[in-house]
Parts: sequence; C-alpha cells; structure tokens
Amino acid sequence: MTVATQTFADRLAAEVERKRSQLVVGLDPRVDLLPVELRGDVARFCCGLVDAVCPHVAAVKPQLAFFERLGPEGMAAFDEVCSYAHRAGLLVIGDGKRGDIGSTARAYAEAYLEGETPRVDALTVNPYLGRESIEPYLSAARRNGTGVFVLVKTSNAGADVQDVTLSDGRPLWQHIATLVAEWGEELVGEIGLSAVGAVVGATHPRAVAEARRLMPQAILLLPGIGAQGGAVADLERAFQSGPASALVNASRSVNYAFREGEGDYRQAAGAEAARLKREIWAASGW
Amino acid sequence: MTVATQTFADRLAAEVERKRSQLVVGLDPRVDLLPVELRGDVARFCCGLVDAVCPHVAAVKPQLAFFERLGPEGMAAFDEVCSYAHRAGLLVIGDGKRGDIGSTARAYAEAYLEGETPRVDALTVNPYLGRESIEPYLSAARRNGTGVFVLVKTSNAGADVQDVTLSDGRPLWQHIATLVAEWGEELVGEIGLSAVGAVVGATHPRAVAEARRLMPQAILLLPGIGAQGGAVADLERAFQSGPASALVNASRSVNYAFREGEGDYRQAAGAEAARLKREIWAASGW
Repeated sequence: MTVATQTFADRLAAEVERKRSQLVVGLDPRVDLLPVELRGDVARFCCGLVDAVCPHVAAVKPQLAFFERLGPEGMAAFDEVCSYAHRAGLLVIGDGKRGDIGSTARAYAEAYLEGETPRVDALTVNPYLGRESIEPYLSAARRNGTGVFVLVKTSNAGADVQDVTLSDGRPLWQHIATLVAEWGEELVGEIGLSAVGAVVGATHPRAVAEARRLMPQAILLLPGIGAQGGAVADLERAFQSGPASALVNASRSVNYAFREGEGDYRQAAGAEAARLKREIWAASGW
Repeated sequence: MTVATQTFADRLAAEVERKRSQLVVGLDPRVDLLPVELRGDVARFCCGLVDAVCPHVAAVKPQLAFFERLGPEGMAAFDEVCSYAHRAGLLVIGDGKRGDIGSTARAYAEAYLEGETPRVDALTVNPYLGRESIEPYLSAARRNGTGVFVLVKTSNAGADVQDVTLSDGRPLWQHIATLVAEWGEELVGEIGLSAVGAVVGATHPRAVAEARRLMPQAILLLPGIGAQGGAVADLERAFQSGPASALVNASRSVNYAFREGEGDYRQAAGAEAARLKREIWAASGW
C-alpha cells in the first residue's frame, strides 16, 4: 500500500492560509542573552517561545549552531524543542546549512529528514557541492513530504563569492537560483509550489524580486529583517507566486524582544510576533 | 601575559616529520558497516580505530554527519572520540563543512574551535557565504592556534557549481582558491604554511596541481583516494610546498578494511594505514 504523503509546500500553504501568517520565528538560544533564570535551560526557553509565537507563525526555525555549541546536551535540547513544536502543530525548519557528498550527504538527510518522525520538516542546505549533494534531500522530499531550502543569496554582504560575475554576465547567485528551480521542478505540490525552496536575504530587495522571477515555484525564505536591516515593506514582489510563496524570518527581534522593555520574555515575543505577522501579511498584498 | 600559541600548521608539520606520514584517517562510523558486536557502540569502534592507526597518521578526521545521525548520543560519542584521539597525541580535524554568518558563524567557531580545550584542532568549512562567514575561524586560529580547511574543489563531480565559468574565464573553484590564499596570508606559521587550508579532491589530479600553484602556503587536504577512485601516485605536485603541505585522507578503505578479509577490524585498519602511509610518503617525493 502506498501512502500518499502531502508535499511540504502544500502542508506549509495550509498553515499560511489558516493562520494568515507568512512569519517564521527563528529559535536562536544565545545563552548570554537569555533571561538569567533560564541560562541553564535552553530547551525551556525555546519551548516558552514556541508557546508564545504559535498562533502567529507558519513555522519555527531552530538554528542548529546555537544548540551544537552546547554539546550533546544542546543536541538533546534541539530534539526536545523540535518535538515540542511538532506537538504544538507547528512545522519546523532546521537551520543547519549542511552540505556534503555521497554517503555523508545521505547521513545528513537521514539525521534530519528521514525515519518514522523526521526531526524537522525542512532543512536549510548549502549548494556549493552541487546537485549530487542535494539529491538525498530531494529523495527524502519524494518519500516523506519534507522540504529543503537552498542558500542562494544570503543576508550578509558576501559579495566576494555569491556576487562574482559569470561568463554570461550574471552573478553566481543567479546561476544557483536557476539550478534551484531545476532541482525543484519534479517536486511541485498541488498549490503550485515546490518542496525545494531558496534562502534569499531580505536585506537585498532587488535580489528578492529577481529571485522570484528566476524561481517562480520556489518558496523564498527571507531572513534579515529587523536586527540586520531588511524592511518588510520592500518584500511584496516575493509573494507574487501566492500567499505561501515567501516566508519572512525574524529571530533576534522576537527571541529577545523582552530586552527592549519590561515583562515576561514570552509576552514580549508573542506581541512582537503578532505585530510582524500583521505587517508581513499586509505587505504581501494577499 | 600573552601566551605564544603554536600555529596549527606548525603543530601539524611537526607531526608529519616525526611520523613521516601525510596520511589522515577519516572516522566515518556507518552503523550498517560496523562489526556486528560494535553496532551499539560507535565510540568504541572509533577509539579502536584511533589505537590502530595512531602510529601511522598525522591526524584523524571524524565526520560529524555520521555522529549527528545518531542524535545526542552520537554527539556524545563524537566528543568521546575527539578526547580519546587528543589523549593519544593526535591532531583532530572535525569534518563538518559548516558555513553561516554573523553570530551564528561565531557559534560554530565556539562549538568546535574555542574554549580551554577546543573539541577539534581544525574544522572543514564551506566558502559560499564569503569572507565574513570565515572570519570567526580565522579569529579562533589567531587566538588558539587552530586551523580551518575551506572547501575548494570537492571529490565528487559537482561540475554544476564549482566548475561554472567566471567572466575572466576561470572556473569558480579557482576564484575560491585565490580567496583562500588571501584569507590565509596573515596566518602563516614558521614552517611557511598557513592555518587556512583547502579541501581539493584527489580525484582531480590536474586541479590538485593548479590548487598548489594558486595557494602556495595552504595545506591541501585531499580526499577521494581508494573507494572514490583517486590515485596516490598522481598527487606528487601537491607536496611541492613541503612535506606537510598536503594531507591525503582515507576513510572507508581504512575503517572497513576488515570487510575485505579476515580478522580484527583494528588489525586490518592498522595494516591498511601503514601501507597507505608508506605509499603516500614515497609519492610525495620527500
């Protein structure tokens, strides 16, 4: 018996429509910024954030680096937070930016996107090792209805690599965007969006518009608003392929909203997430 | 008081000269390939490999993906294996191919290369996010005498990205090689080699020779011999900058040597490592 698994894009689109939200909240537990009483319990801090932002987000995006930095206990906290978010009905995007080849690439796919209950619903990955390095994530997407977000143009300057000019006059990142569109063609769901998405920094609004054109079926994951300087109002073009065709990520400005004012960190995070959700929905034009 | 820390390249060069070995053995614990009695104890398997190959290698290179795949217990095993290798006097290269920006990049550097006793002596990293994403590893190298190996041309085909042609006619990987040489300039040790090395697949001998020319002070980490088809005899040019200017990695052919014959896995691994060490030293021309 074949179980028809819903694609990642269709699952995400249902969430976006239901909550009228294209906001993703990153979970970046930086121990030095946590409320003092929670510095020994990163999982509790993150689960508190999940509770607070749940009504306002399409997904959460735990950043692996901040968990890895805490050693094996940090990875146990990562698992705990992912399970907690899943039980709360949220989609989870693991931000690992992994990239390797052959059996090692398969091991990363197995680590995060395979098994009876994959640890995350989608993973961010790095394209430098080429199509072969992406194949295990495509394979997981086919079988398990998971997704992948390929780094295309990141929110930092990074001009020394991603903006290098190719023989046809385009910057490298546009070539990567074309590859991402190709890799995703076979994984388009009912809603017309692919399980192969792309990370494009909200700090480059013109690049976002060009990315939309080059990858009409990719879900664009847009980091860089708030602390990094990107503005929500500049992102309308990203949503041209549908309400769920772009996701706007905010991490620090939500996680650490409490540091800007008074009160409980959850209350502050929930309020900031609610505000961003409305601002993004309005900017999206849907 | 400033503590003068020896650079990574100088520590490595001392090991290479002392053991007359440019062999690095990767530790790739693939549970399905382990001796049946060790399938529940990846750390014991890897520590057994460390004992077996210790006299023959300049360093070991645990591959994070295979540990991550086992969850928090796998990461505990990774730490155990790294500590064990350090106590055996070995340098440890963490193969994580990490790459991120800003505070996240710093978290990866802190996870692996900072602290009183860094978990590893060097980490493999991905260059797609540019100089800014590499800076925290350079900073760790300055302070702690650690190293970094930047992916330049990997041992898979990967032609859709690394071989794309730039406006000046060069393939992308050669541009990355030029950047790696620049990034490493300030971190050259007494032996004339930099703490910023490069990963170049042994499966592309002509690219190895060109990489040597473009990065005269970088230690080249050359994977891809054995199972992937690269031949040691083709790699002499890599060693033109000194006996420690290149390292040849073997993983599967050593880890799973026992599957090709009879006897204990440690004995088989030790014998294969001893053979490779001699073959590489002879091919290096030193």
